[in-house]
Amino acid sequence: MTTIKNEDTIVALATPAGVGAIAVIRVSGPKAIETVDKIFKGRKKLSEASTHTVHYGTIVTGEGELIDDVLVSVFRKPNSYTGEDSVEISTHGSPLITQKIIELLLSENLRIAEPGEFTKRAFLNNRIDLTQAEAVVDVINARTEASLRGSRNQLDGLLSQKVKQLREMLINTSSFVELELDFAEEDIEFVNKDELIKRIDDVINEIDKLLSTYSFGRVIREGVNVALVGKPNVGKSSLLNYILKESRAIVSEIPGTTRDVIREEVSIDGILFKLYDTAGIRASEDVIEKEGVSRSREAVKISDVVLLIGDVEQKFSDDLEEELKTLTGSNHIIKVLNKIDLKKESGIDADVKVSAITGEGIEELFRIMKAKAIGSESYTEKTAVVSNIRHYDCLKRAKESLQIAKESTEGGMSGEFIAVDLRRAEDSLAEIIGEVTTDDILNNIFSKFCIGK
Amino acid sequence: MTTIKNEDTIVALATPAGVGAIAVIRVSGPKAIETVDKIFKGRKKLSEASTHTVHYGTIVTGEGELIDDVLVSVFRKPNSYTGEDSVEISTHGSPLITQKIIELLLSENLRIAEPGEFTKRAFLNNRIDLTQAEAVVDVINARTEASLRGSRNQLDGLLSQKVKQLREMLINTSSFVELELDFAEEDIEFVNKDELIKRIDDVINEIDKLLSTYSFGRVIREGVNVALVGKPNVGKSSLLNYILKESRAIVSEIPGTTRDVIREEVSIDGILFKLYDTAGIRASEDVIEKEGVSRSREAVKISDVVLLIGDVEQKFSDDLEEELKTLTGSNHIIKVLNKIDLKKESGIDADVKVSAITGEGIEELFRIMKAKAIGSESYTEKTAVVSNIRHYDCLKRAKESLQIAKESTEGGMSGEFIAVDLRRAEDSLAEIIGEVTTDDILNNIFSKFCIGK
Repeated sequence: MTTIKNEDTIVALATPAGVGAIAVIRVSGPKAIETVDKIFKGRKKLSEASTHTVHYGTIVTGEGELIDDVLVSVFRKPNSYTGEDSVEISTHGSPLITQKIIELLLSENLRIAEPGEFTKRAFLNNRIDLTQAEAVVDVINARTEASLRGSRNQLDGLLSQKVKQLREMLINTSSFVELELDFAEEDIEFVNKDELIKRIDDVINEIDKLLSTYSFGRVIREGVNVALVGKPNVGKSSLLNYILKESRAIVSEIPGTTRDVIREEVSIDGILFKLYDTAGIRASEDVIEKEGVSRSREAVKISDVVLLIGDVEQKFSDDLEEELKTLTGSNHIIKVLNKIDLKKESGIDADVKVSAITGEGIEELFRIMKAKAIGSESYTEKTAVVSNIRHYDCLKRAKESLQIAKESTEGGMSGEFIAVDLRRAEDSLAEIIGEVTTDDILNNIFSKFCIGK
Repeated sequence: MTTIKNEDTIVALATPAGVGAIAVIRVSGPKAIETVDKIFKGRKKLSEASTHTVHYGTIVTGEGELIDDVLVSVFRKPNSYTGEDSVEISTHGSPLITQKIIELLLSENLRIAEPGEFTKRAFLNNRIDLTQAEAVVDVINARTEASLRGSRNQLDGLLSQKVKQLREMLINTSSFVELELDFAEEDIEFVNKDELIKRIDDVINEIDKLLSTYSFGRVIREGVNVALVGKPNVGKSSLLNYILKESRAIVSEIPGTTRDVIREEVSIDGILFKLYDTAGIRASEDVIEKEGVSRSREAVKISDVVLLIGDVEQKFSDDLEEELKTLTGSNHIIKVLNKIDLKKESGIDADVKVSAITGEGIEELFRIMKAKAIGSESYTEKTAVVSNIRHYDCLKRAKESLQIAKESTEGGMSGEFIAVDLRRAEDSLAEIIGEVTTDDILNNIFSKFCIGK
């Protein structure tokens, strides 16, 4: 298990930085209520307040200077987000005021919360499990309806429930093997071999089902990379512009994504598509152009979908198509024939025929893009979906251990060997929900949070 | 009085836009509680909740889709910010989530709040007066300790109290005149002339005291414009850099301030100084340079303080000084002799001698800048200070009416004339605190607010 160091009382601004109508400062830990009481003047002491009540009053320094009038909400353990005594101070939305109040609290021996520490404490105090904690940051960062729904699904515990159910199945199977171990010295016939294999297979099948949701889960969580490739003058830019106009363009900036290939983000049916307008991927002697080509190649390599664009006047380039296939695999390519407004019957074969002028065929293009991106499977809101690579890795390791256990069983190996691998599988599953974890795993997860969550 | 149209129930995001740990949506109006109840699923109905209580639950669409788990605070009239039934919904800090919840509420016939509408309702419901409402936006936008303190002072009602006290004095004086009016036809001797003049003078004196705080009030609210002017190579830039290092540089961006003259903002003893590094104000034939000169001149004109910088090697330019005097008036100029690290005794006269290398004299420069900016008067935290030009205008109009009333009295005019001007003065004072107001005044004030406040 992990080190619990939540004897500290922590404080952080919980609302986005900047000027607004109100701001909220969060305090959590054993001394939360008594510390805020030191700087809060209201009709009654917070220490006498019931949980889940709101109190009007003022924040005043030791020297009697009034900082702000505030609303203070009191939450008593275990009925708070963190599971600890907590206080939320709602102030006028001025960075100066929140800074002064936080400084005051720091001078009363509170410390600034680490990123994600409130949620980490919620996890350490068993308010939520690890997949739910991870979902918190995904919910906050969700930028499309689909990703929000996916993260909510995880926050609501659908994945946890499924993983717990698989662990249950494994524990029952283990007890089978352990029963056998207990009687091993008595040389009892290994009657349960087939039954054991069947049970292991059942869990493997369930894990496979979960693993198969990952491509969908990843897509709704992270979006779909789409590269637009084609010879000059086939209307790549017009097509991009039409898509931006028709779909719901997402304007928010993503920190850390600066690449020279033009990238636009759009939401089509709630799914995030990241469109890369590539300069071209053909070999060139020109140095600057070479650089462009190498960037375009990179864009194609990371793409989930490649739009190979041609037009009614010129055939698709076979060379280009071949190169794309080696870069990304043929099943990711959509051949888009543009400019059908100019000539209805070109006799050129394509997956979809469009006009970036009239918009004809664009809906069909969207449908094909979506199908390529998320596959044919559809998941209901009640299906557990894996969208996090950590969970995917844990599940894969669990499956590997189970396959070894199965082979050992088939090979008539002793129960001790089988038991070890079953336990490994169990541990891998436990890691997903955080019942087995390390400081490194936790730090890695919570460092991705913002401060105040 | 003004049109009250707060039968609507309004909603707005109250925390700054963007991603954060939590976001708060504010709802206020007669249907606030019942409307949120329609989309909130908790342990009990909010309609059954007591005021100032917090409730954990989920926001769910009509189709049963879970949007987020939330904390909902209930405030019952008149004990809320607006004086109406109000609800605050604390969600995960995702723009998508807050947008969806606000959309849900809009579909339940709420409408988006206008800028400042929550505070406007607080004013219309007599929770605060107009100077306090105006202070709310100043508190939020305050960028230095001093401006925050000044706005708090006003929010706490110090100016209102003073204005109410002056109105009280005027009402007593009016009753004096009206008494006289009642007996006018009985041709009673106008015995109270001196007494009346004395009373009017008393109010004028008090108004003068308030008016005299305006230069201080404006400085702490808006900051001090400082232009740095001097011949090339006197060390203007080094001095600017030293000041930035020594004072507390303010990093936040101010929207809408793009000018080519370099502007830096620093806080010295809690007062905001806006430093303009001018290219030079001397005439030039070069077109581009001319443009720079004209910008520099503008910077000097709007300056409250001009630092005329010279160095120990070269005398201050008399021409430059003359030009500055015509642009800004001599009492705004501080002559700063730089580079005293090179030569201690230069024999050149200056207001302050400094070294931008060793820092010698900089503290003294700060002291002089502060004295020039806010004058010699010092105000305690309990002094009412006028910092808003609207208040200043109202006070000036009140004073003008009183001066007319005084002249009429001295001139032996009939009481009816005097009464009219006394009533005008009263109205001007009432306008400050909003007891007399118009839609235009209110719209002008509240349009400066952000939405959600």
